[in-house]
Amino acid sequence: MSLADIGPIPNGGCCRLALTAEDGIGRDLVVNWMREIDLDVRIDAVGNVIGTWNVGTGAPVMTGSHIDTVRTGGKYDGNLGVLAGLEVIETLQEAGITPARPLAVGFFTNEEGARFAPDMLGSLVYVGGMSTEEALNTLAIDGARLGDELQNIGYAGSAPCPGPSPHAFVELHIEQGPLLEAHGVTIGAVSGVQGISWRELTIVGQSNHAGTTPMALRHDPAYVVGEITVFLRKLATRFGGNQVCTVGKVDLTPNLVNVVPGSATMTIDVRNTDEFLLRQAEHEIEAFLAELAVSEGVSISARVLARFVPIVFDERVVSIVERHAQRQGNTVERMPSGAGHDAQMFARVCPTGMIFVPSVRGISHNPAEHTDEADLITGSNILLATMLELASTEFSA
Amino acid sequence: MSLADIGPIPNGGCCRLALTAEDGIGRDLVVNWMREIDLDVRIDAVGNVIGTWNVGTGAPVMTGSHIDTVRTGGKYDGNLGVLAGLEVIETLQEAGITPARPLAVGFFTNEEGARFAPDMLGSLVYVGGMSTEEALNTLAIDGARLGDELQNIGYAGSAPCPGPSPHAFVELHIEQGPLLEAHGVTIGAVSGVQGISWRELTIVGQSNHAGTTPMALRHDPAYVVGEITVFLRKLATRFGGNQVCTVGKVDLTPNLVNVVPGSATMTIDVRNTDEFLLRQAEHEIEAFLAELAVSEGVSISARVLARFVPIVFDERVVSIVERHAQRQGNTVERMPSGAGHDAQMFARVCPTGMIFVPSVRGISHNPAEHTDEADLITGSNILLATMLELASTEFSA
Repeated sequence: MSLADIGPIPNGGCCRLALTAEDGIGRDLVVNWMREIDLDVRIDAVGNVIGTWNVGTGAPVMTGSHIDTVRTGGKYDGNLGVLAGLEVIETLQEAGITPARPLAVGFFTNEEGARFAPDMLGSLVYVGGMSTEEALNTLAIDGARLGDELQNIGYAGSAPCPGPSPHAFVELHIEQGPLLEAHGVTIGAVSGVQGISWRELTIVGQSNHAGTTPMALRHDPAYVVGEITVFLRKLATRFGGNQVCTVGKVDLTPNLVNVVPGSATMTIDVRNTDEFLLRQAEHEIEAFLAELAVSEGVSISARVLARFVPIVFDERVVSIVERHAQRQGNTVERMPSGAGHDAQMFARVCPTGMIFVPSVRGISHNPAEHTDEADLITGSNILLATMLELASTEFSA
Repeated sequence: MSLADIGPIPNGGCCRLALTAEDGIGRDLVVNWMREIDLDVRIDAVGNVIGTWNVGTGAPVMTGSHIDTVRTGGKYDGNLGVLAGLEVIETLQEAGITPARPLAVGFFTNEEGARFAPDMLGSLVYVGGMSTEEALNTLAIDGARLGDELQNIGYAGSAPCPGPSPHAFVELHIEQGPLLEAHGVTIGAVSGVQGISWRELTIVGQSNHAGTTPMALRHDPAYVVGEITVFLRKLATRFGGNQVCTVGKVDLTPNLVNVVPGSATMTIDVRNTDEFLLRQAEHEIEAFLAELAVSEGVSISARVLARFVPIVFDERVVSIVERHAQRQGNTVERMPSGAGHDAQMFARVCPTGMIFVPSVRGISHNPAEHTDEADLITGSNILLATMLELASTEFSA
């Protein structure tokens, strides 16, 4: 709740866009909490912060998530996973329990992607999926350079990227969807993450007078945006399963009531757990755009903002999560994640899994985002048991 | 071209939104030109400026238009009609020709409606269609009050509204559409003006995570905007004739790639020369919105930004325009105007008509707006002959 007081927005939400002043103040608070429980805090070149409890031997079992938010964010998204990690370590310290390996808690830069693209940038760089140089030169939607913004808030660190691979990684997160609540289940043992395809489309037509230009002679980017939006809904419905498509951002120019717009930009967010289906969706969208550009007499250019293949988590980690959830008396369901998470990046370099707790009414990226306190505690207890077991499990390749 | 140098934008266009500093500088320039030809200049309570050449007897024959522009305006829209009026008077003065009645040239506040709604506000108030008080309290899209902005640029005048009715009114304007060029005709004798229906829709749904919210559970304002945009295109195509529908402005909140928007506002601009068909279009749109609100689980509220019934110009004035165009050796075509014009307001109080000259490729509200110099001269000569004949024509009711 103290962290949620930083960057408050009406109705109890948070706005701490990545690397803004608010994000910096939030980071300082969490780093202080890390130091209060004697973690060794290291900041890397893209601003990822890892606090390690140096006990036991070998590579650490890592948990963590992010503390940046979208513009209209809630209190729990990301923040829960970071603070629960600190709670796990503090609880073990107070109970005098020493795990077989070090335990580490990280928070990773720009997970949301609401200010810089791609999302999950920090964890992507941590595992070597993007060069530090490219990350530092990324420009925000407000034009700022990521490297400069890191300097401004004092989080341009010296730890190298890519960072050392953990022994295993497990992340606690709110579901951000309605399924656990709808099924009356307390815990999700996350089996994997949907693949994500983000594109920004730029549509250039012919700006003209809204009253004097006959319909047949129009080259109207706003109409094209409308057709694409309706097409994506139909495609998602036709594909079924967990296929989702979203148009979240639309900007018309000049954006006036009596002017046929000259140009438009829009984003499309397409996700599926199946890479084959995700590619098929992308191909159908491309074919539709090509036809539409011809029929309306506009140009449509696409820029890839993010593209991640679907992730399947390590069966051993998923089983450990599932078993501890059951042992502690909870109902549990294996489920894919519809959202992207930092854990999916760590799945490239070590055995990885996730724990979901329910989101009331499935609401997230919204000030009304809520998870009952009992579920926060339950999720944290399962995180503790999972991290302890991971610390004493040896994984063979 | 000197007026077009004020508020320049790339590629030769103009941005002089109503009552901005740029509009003020443009007004000062035109008022100076009025004074240079000894016109009696009066500014009324909503900033309309009327310059009168006090010769002959009785109510004046008036011409005029507007000098405000849209954000991405061209050089000719409105400005031509004002400057041609000055040219007509100067030419008659130089030739020693004295008309039977005074001649007046006006420019009217906020014709475009790009900053304040409704459009044609100044001429509407001039003819008594809106109270001065309501006009002064109108708020701009940037939040400014019209009365305050008039004060700021020094155009809160003392002449009363409504103003005195002219003997007759005729306005020279660029076509802003492609029909004259397409038909190879030089002059349009404008028979009337399309009716205009502007609405702003506010759609409130449920903001949520783009990855985790199944399609069937969404209440997505962006999708609703898309459906409405596609519906309007289909409606306009089905109605045919001169029915046009435009979505010019869309604003999503929060407008981020990975968030299903919580709300959206959009404008719809619907026009027809036939009031019966215009009402039918409005009814069909209302029914569609009501169905869509239920099927998507959103609320849709509508606010009327402007509503003008179609106008039929005075047959006697249209005939005079047509006859002079032919006498001067031009091809001429009777046609309705797709755009709203100040002349349609004067049609409420006196015999009124308009003269159109061609717009190259039909482009308007765009820096590329162009009319050949020969056509500007031709139109001005027809304006001169028409004003002279109107001054010596007595109209019986």
